[in-house]
Amino acid sequence: MVLDLSTDVVALTEAVVDVESVSRNEQALADAIEAALRACDHLEVTRLGNSLVARTDLGRGERVVIAGHIDTVPLNDNLPVRNDGTMLHGLGTCDMKGGVAVALKLAAGVRDPNRDITYVFYDCEEIEAVHNGLRRIAEERPDLVEADFAILMEPSDAAIEAGCQGTLRVEVRTHGERAHSARSWKGVNAIHRAGEVLRRLEAYDARRPVVDGLEYHEGLNAVLISGGVATNVIPDEAVVTVNYRFAPDRTEEEALAFVRDFFDGYDVTVTDSAPGARPGLDLPAAKAFVEAVGGEVKPKFGWTDVARFTVLGVPAVNYGPGDPSYAHKADEHVPIEHLRRCEQTLRSWLGAS
Amino acid sequence: MVLDLSTDVVALTEAVVDVESVSRNEQALADAIEAALRACDHLEVTRLGNSLVARTDLGRGERVVIAGHIDTVPLNDNLPVRNDGTMLHGLGTCDMKGGVAVALKLAAGVRDPNRDITYVFYDCEEIEAVHNGLRRIAEERPDLVEADFAILMEPSDAAIEAGCQGTLRVEVRTHGERAHSARSWKGVNAIHRAGEVLRRLEAYDARRPVVDGLEYHEGLNAVLISGGVATNVIPDEAVVTVNYRFAPDRTEEEALAFVRDFFDGYDVTVTDSAPGARPGLDLPAAKAFVEAVGGEVKPKFGWTDVARFTVLGVPAVNYGPGDPSYAHKADEHVPIEHLRRCEQTLRSWLGAS
Repeated sequence: MVLDLSTDVVALTEAVVDVESVSRNEQALADAIEAALRACDHLEVTRLGNSLVARTDLGRGERVVIAGHIDTVPLNDNLPVRNDGTMLHGLGTCDMKGGVAVALKLAAGVRDPNRDITYVFYDCEEIEAVHNGLRRIAEERPDLVEADFAILMEPSDAAIEAGCQGTLRVEVRTHGERAHSARSWKGVNAIHRAGEVLRRLEAYDARRPVVDGLEYHEGLNAVLISGGVATNVIPDEAVVTVNYRFAPDRTEEEALAFVRDFFDGYDVTVTDSAPGARPGLDLPAAKAFVEAVGGEVKPKFGWTDVARFTVLGVPAVNYGPGDPSYAHKADEHVPIEHLRRCEQTLRSWLGAS
Repeated sequence: MVLDLSTDVVALTEAVVDVESVSRNEQALADAIEAALRACDHLEVTRLGNSLVARTDLGRGERVVIAGHIDTVPLNDNLPVRNDGTMLHGLGTCDMKGGVAVALKLAAGVRDPNRDITYVFYDCEEIEAVHNGLRRIAEERPDLVEADFAILMEPSDAAIEAGCQGTLRVEVRTHGERAHSARSWKGVNAIHRAGEVLRRLEAYDARRPVVDGLEYHEGLNAVLISGGVATNVIPDEAVVTVNYRFAPDRTEEEALAFVRDFFDGYDVTVTDSAPGARPGLDLPAAKAFVEAVGGEVKPKFGWTDVARFTVLGVPAVNYGPGDPSYAHKADEHVPIEHLRRCEQTLRSWLGAS
């Protein structure tokens, strides 16, 4: 598999989409990206697992990270890519191989940028935070991601989306007592008890707080459910995995306290947690980028690694092609116009023609 | 693994229990039983898969089947067997290796019975009916199970339990629409929709009809639940597997009509169905056995292969050691006194000392 970075951004997006890279299966795509980056003599390339970092080192006064994850959610009968002339359709077109292709075009084509750039292509963003490739880089080689500002090319309608919501996952467990299902009154059905957990979730009313002038929108959802021993046994356990997306006015600790209270009376175990990030548009590097790009700044609902950069002290925004409301949907797609506009806007901002 | 059929029924039960034989894993136990039966020159032995049939052929005027399944439900941290002096504890002690051991003792020890006997030891009773070893024998070699009367040694408190309830399994499916869990309002959560399915099950009020003088007790339970795509995706499907145990005054068709009506508005798929059996104590062979055993006759709540014999035209009752309410429970056990009493009662009925 060879990626030709001299082809246009649309064809490059198609090529990247067609290398399937569901989380934990990124090796083939990482290999292809590594080979393409190593062919660029103006970049210094480092690989950690299936993540890649490529840096210019021109001694500029400012350094900017341009980053994107290379993994996708599971297949949903939506590969290979399809180009209808206006849109590219297929798994990852929106989230976020369009952004990855734009970054690859810049990496190969902008040889003499007005700011030093650190390109980051990383794995395992769509699964538990513990596997996240950017987290690994920040832990093992924090020097590689030092910067004055970061742009995450997550889908954001080719406009700036600032901040991000946090994400918390818990397992809510119900307990019962096994018995033969022919004498069910001798046992206690743990799956039936999970009905009350789902009832509370159905009745949940989402908060929509305004933070630094941007309105966020929370969500509390069952994402997995399992339970049962055998088809003739009254089940003694059921597990509902719940994902809470919380606005950046809450800390991780406050989010967990809310969830524990919400499921009062149930056994709640945390499996995953990542903080949100406030919009942070008052920081100088962010202000400058907003002025260069123009347009309305919106809140980011999805969790992104903006939060990870915030923790590292690097101001960061989301800016990338694609309507984020199609991310993780079977019919995800990206407008070709977004791909071209994002590429051109960033080229101009970096001082290339 | 060698089974010594000359040892006493308690030691033999212990030996049979300690050969783990969860459904689909019966081969080791079937091999041991086959070897022990083939050593008895008064029996004609046939093997089909992991099921065994051993027959006397003495030209008696009556032929009786004595049958038991050799599989168990899944392990629940309850092996090896433990003998506390009064009870044997452990997986299968109650359901139904105690009965299997009694039948093995009779097979080896009663060389000259007053009735011809067909012993049946069969596999896959605890899972979907399509795998049932007795069903396979009845389909492939119906001649092997022709008889005037059948005794199933399912646990029944060492007393006669007549008839049995039917069992129906369906999958109740809810549908939704996937979306990124950070923008959950763009999708429809199928797991939340399953809350209403569980709500109906919680509110279910069991029928307890009287059939031929015996009171049955129905049950309608979720036995499995599953749903979800990934921990950041709003799920588009959830599946609740429901087991309906119905009294023998309902046919399979009536049972299904009830369940379809109960889950009106949901997608219902049948995965397994087996009819109940009316008590049938008015039949002469059944009456004679009841007189010989004595005691109160009770209704059988669990589905047993009594129903399969009923369909074949062979009157059948349940009679075996163990309290059936402990079947499929982690703490299942069998009273040693039941093992000895069942063995002695059947030996006497068969004209042996």
